Amino acid sequence: MRYSQLFGKTNKNAPHDADCANARWLVQGGFVDQLAAGVYTFLPLGLRVLDKVKRIIREEMDALGAQELLMPALQPAEPWQVTGRWDDPGEEVMFQFEGRGGKKFGLGWTHEEIVTPLVQRHVKSYRDLPLSVYQIQDKFRNEPRAKSGLLRGREFSMKDLYSFHLTLADLEAFYQKAAQAYLRVFKRCGLNALMVEASGGAFSKYSHEFQVPTEAGEDTVFSCVKCNWAQNKEICTLKNGDACPPGCGGQVREMKAIEVGNIFQLKNRFSDSFKFDVAGDDGKPARVLMGCYGIGPSRVMGTAVEVHHDDKGILWPREIAPYLVHVVSLPAKDKTEQERVMNAAEGIVSDLQDAGIDVLWDDRVSVSAGEKFADADLIGCPLRLIVSQKTLADGAVEWKERHEGGSRLVKSGDVLEEAGTFAKEPYETTVR
Amino acid sequence: MRYSQLFGKTNKNAPHDADCANARWLVQGGFVDQLAAGVYTFLPLGLRVLDKVKRIIREEMDALGAQELLMPALQPAEPWQVTGRWDDPGEEVMFQFEGRGGKKFGLGWTHEEIVTPLVQRHVKSYRDLPLSVYQIQDKFRNEPRAKSGLLRGREFSMKDLYSFHLTLADLEAFYQKAAQAYLRVFKRCGLNALMVEASGGAFSKYSHEFQVPTEAGEDTVFSCVKCNWAQNKEICTLKNGDACPPGCGGQVREMKAIEVGNIFQLKNRFSDSFKFDVAGDDGKPARVLMGCYGIGPSRVMGTAVEVHHDDKGILWPREIAPYLVHVVSLPAKDKTEQERVMNAAEGIVSDLQDAGIDVLWDDRVSVSAGEKFADADLIGCPLRLIVSQKTLADGAVEWKERHEGGSRLVKSGDVLEEAGTFAKEPYETTVR
Repeated sequence: MRYSQLFGKTNKNAPHDADCANARWLVQGGFVDQLAAGVYTFLPLGLRVLDKVKRIIREEMDALGAQELLMPALQPAEPWQVTGRWDDPGEEVMFQFEGRGGKKFGLGWTHEEIVTPLVQRHVKSYRDLPLSVYQIQDKFRNEPRAKSGLLRGREFSMKDLYSFHLTLADLEAFYQKAAQAYLRVFKRCGLNALMVEASGGAFSKYSHEFQVPTEAGEDTVFSCVKCNWAQNKEICTLKNGDACPPGCGGQVREMKAIEVGNIFQLKNRFSDSFKFDVAGDDGKPARVLMGCYGIGPSRVMGTAVEVHHDDKGILWPREIAPYLVHVVSLPAKDKTEQERVMNAAEGIVSDLQDAGIDVLWDDRVSVSAGEKFADADLIGCPLRLIVSQKTLADGAVEWKERHEGGSRLVKSGDVLEEAGTFAKEPYETTVR
Repeated sequence: MRYSQLFGKTNKNAPHDADCANARWLVQGGFVDQLAAGVYTFLPLGLRVLDKVKRIIREEMDALGAQELLMPALQPAEPWQVTGRWDDPGEEVMFQFEGRGGKKFGLGWTHEEIVTPLVQRHVKSYRDLPLSVYQIQDKFRNEPRAKSGLLRGREFSMKDLYSFHLTLADLEAFYQKAAQAYLRVFKRCGLNALMVEASGGAFSKYSHEFQVPTEAGEDTVFSCVKCNWAQNKEICTLKNGDACPPGCGGQVREMKAIEVGNIFQLKNRFSDSFKFDVAGDDGKPARVLMGCYGIGPSRVMGTAVEVHHDDKGILWPREIAPYLVHVVSLPAKDKTEQERVMNAAEGIVSDLQDAGIDVLWDDRVSVSAGEKFADADLIGCPLRLIVSQKTLADGAVEWKERHEGGSRLVKSGDVLEEAGTFAKEPYETTVR
């Protein structure tokens, strides 16, 4: 992609109402545009990131054996009345309104009320279980105070997975597999998420949240410095420095974190409401048990910025970077030299693209080197390749990784191979 | 995909309220599930079709040079008040409601009110034009009478493209290019769409609709039997059998059709409302001119079924078929034979998949051949490969194309190559 043609450029000024790093850098970098509080347009650069997050989630959900479908956002009141959630929490959370003819609708903020009767209509026998289905779809919340950029929106993207089981043991086994898939999703998105015990409501002792430690977080968790034990402050009876409950010998530390996912054993909460039974292997009706599992792709994107930025802009984790490589061609002293630089840059761009590597090319000729570097820092692609009169005199390009201070020259003939190696390195090497 | 594991199976009975072929066959085939009138869940099989339609549209929009972005469905009242469309057509078309704190929102049924100020915020100079952006996103309409399956929904998928120009000549040139891209989209989706003149409103003599002739259509068009001239009855002053106005010598014929897309030269309709000027090359403000271009992917999917079905089910056009190949393994006389059949089928499935061909495998062992064939006819994949004790005795599989009456044996060793050839054939050969 030629930057000169990209819709949505960088902006030197931070938005006046940015209350957090992701709101600031995503707007300034040309990734998103705010339409209203908590309602954003994803510009081409931002949509690339969001789509990459969604692709990672799809791969991990498909690997779990879950099947993708797509449920509506526009939902009639009736199934919500069956579970009692039309009135409570009702309008507190859900946009509710009447269509023509007085028909009551709400906008989905979750889909238990839709997926349970849907699966019930199609699944009649124990032979059809276990089953897991998921969707990636936009959800809506009637937020009292939308804030924090992509972290707390009125419209936001969600992946919601629902699983259906005959036995508690089967639900439990899938729940653990799903938790591992969740940790892989976050890792690939450059987030070291903790799996944190949280309130399980009336149906389970615990649910689990996936929390990414950062000062910008709204949640508070206690996490052991030595083992994996972690608990949300809301249910935790410990204080900073207490011994880790499982007795690993470590201490618990209080920290701020952002919740990027959560998983619940719903058990019979919704199957009871809808009286969802299947024919068991003994011929008798068996009540179905359910689990639900959520990740917000737009929230993951916002969290990645909260965790991976500096005072110049974003440092995208490799797998979700809008482009892996940012080729920057610099202004030259005259037209002939400028043409040489542009031809060399275009050659590198097309070689990299032919090798399947995403490239953004800052092809602007009337913009200073300083401004181009500032834009590249702001946009935050993992690898910058600078092509100038000076580097070409050395038969080279300048290789600069976003998370490193220095740079080095790489011979023009070696760029493709080295970039190929860079593209295949495990993501951890570019995540701080 | 193993059919035994697929969520969303066929149903022998037509839904009692199906008022058209797509509502009937898509529900019966396990492609969609109706939540409310005009509100559907896309089951895994249906989501595959919808995603393929969207992919075709993306490819053709990208080839036009349009950039993809994603705008919100949840829209504040203010920009709609600027254009006067909050009150008229207002609630007639738009779901409108209040969020907390009395803030007025509506659900997007089109995006001129969002995209115009968005582009205005980012585009300041004539150098940034022309520009075209598009999105594929779910839209909502407060339909008085949702009906006809996917054809007239309350929630439906839309691709909307918007173009921005300095001159009428530039708008006109892009409009023609977009029209050609539209015809390619429909052709790839198995639809022979007519480009039909329709009312241009206050701003243009004509807009254009893309209409697919079929008895199931709600629209009426007059179309020349000889040349490409066609006009919507709403603006046409001719009657059946009249001479074609451009004077090609042909006659116009009246016919029913389904509208699958439309394109408008909006010119300054919305840029006037928002006072959207850029700095012209003479330094003076220049009013921007706009075009808009819509295709409904879910409507395209429904229309494909209206046009391509028989009394047994769907005949999917190749590029949007849920799977290109449906492998059907039949019950055998004993366990040993059954195992041979299953192993042979599995081998074919994995060979085809390795060659990049989509395969649905009806792997059920306790279902009769007749039931399997009926399901395969209903689901409508273009190519069926039957593996049975009998075909294996001939060292072959039975090759049956959905749109043909007969079948033939193909040697097992030749299946992969022949299927590869079939996959590459131009789509027209499988579209009636």
